[in-house]
Amino acid sequence: MADAVAIFSGGLDSTTLLYHLRAEGHSLRSLSVDYGQRHARRELDCAGRIAADLGLEWRRLDLTSLVDFFGSNALTDAARGIPTGAYSADSMALTVVPNRNMILLSVALSWAIATGATAVAFGAHGGTYAPYPDCRPAFADAMAAVARVCHESSLEVWAPFVGWSKADIVARGAELGVPFERTWSCYRGGVVHCGECGTCLDRRAAFEGAGVSDPTVYRPRE
Amino acid sequence: MADAVAIFSGGLDSTTLLYHLRAEGHSLRSLSVDYGQRHARRELDCAGRIAADLGLEWRRLDLTSLVDFFGSNALTDAARGIPTGAYSADSMALTVVPNRNMILLSVALSWAIATGATAVAFGAHGGTYAPYPDCRPAFADAMAAVARVCHESSLEVWAPFVGWSKADIVARGAELGVPFERTWSCYRGGVVHCGECGTCLDRRAAFEGAGVSDPTVYRPRE
Repeated sequence: MADAVAIFSGGLDSTTLLYHLRAEGHSLRSLSVDYGQRHARRELDCAGRIAADLGLEWRRLDLTSLVDFFGSNALTDAARGIPTGAYSADSMALTVVPNRNMILLSVALSWAIATGATAVAFGAHGGTYAPYPDCRPAFADAMAAVARVCHESSLEVWAPFVGWSKADIVARGAELGVPFERTWSCYRGGVVHCGECGTCLDRRAAFEGAGVSDPTVYRPRE
Repeated sequence: MADAVAIFSGGLDSTTLLYHLRAEGHSLRSLSVDYGQRHARRELDCAGRIAADLGLEWRRLDLTSLVDFFGSNALTDAARGIPTGAYSADSMALTVVPNRNMILLSVALSWAIATGATAVAFGAHGGTYAPYPDCRPAFADAMAAVARVCHESSLEVWAPFVGWSKADIVARGAELGVPFERTWSCYRGGVVHCGECGTCLDRRAAFEGAGVSDPTVYRPRE
């Protein structure tokens, strides 16, 4: 049992993370960051509602000033489109926000120190495709090592899903009663999930892989 | 020789860092961050002028939204005073902005990746007092380790002064012709250095220790 800060996007993975850590008995605060991702509004609205349902302290942090430091990528650069179709190495590379998770974890660690929490958690997971560098076990381990020495007392970094596929997360979420229909994945940030971008296809495939009924409303195909 | 991003506050240490890395032949960009430190305006004005003199690309990033996540400390909390007198463990603890350097380095790494740079540098140093946790060799080493795995290609974190005292930095800066009178240390951020806060006393002592004439204008004692 620990006091922990969870990085919480309002997506399927980090929502299941909250339920999972709560089920393990930890006491949580949740942190959502607007770093200029084009689906921020949709995603973070979902996060706020889910945190309220769970009765968790929730903070939304505006770091949109970072956009100028991320270079050109499909997630934070309004001039680019979101790639459609299943992820390939190339289309995934387009959606990499460089070093995003280190920034999120470093802010979560600051807030943890300020509030007396001793751990931070994030929903990084493997999956069937080559994962983002800052979602890999080597990154999670290195962040855990730096968290041990960044403050006078040692902190922990938890990535409980780092060896899991997204289907594993859906299966665990189903066990825990996660309200999947309230979570948001789509990078497009429309009224409903587009069903066509890489992250929508991943979401669909995860429900299929887990044998769990997918409650997501996808935009009808034209 | 590498392309590097230097974290640059406009203070004595990071100004000497720029001169030092330039003397070693590296190509630099410089990044100054307003994280709500009360002396931000004075400090970052100095940074901008020094970067312009050196002909370096310089960016000022507004991260003042972080203030709410740092808890109570003398540097970012307007309700607190800056402690006067030489640093003790207690008075230093009051000026700790929790996990500040990890945040600065993580943003610098993002910008490095976005611009094709392969290293980030910061001016952490030891000194005669117990240093801040995020200025220690163990922290610098752990950050170097995570930088190797946060992106598809490996990045470096440089802390060339981490084993130096502040007097060593003054001595090196004097060799390199650093315009010390243009740098800013004082946490109070007045018109001239107060001469009484811990960082002013450290600055004075470093010039004395290095046997270098101190060009700083300190406020006359009352």
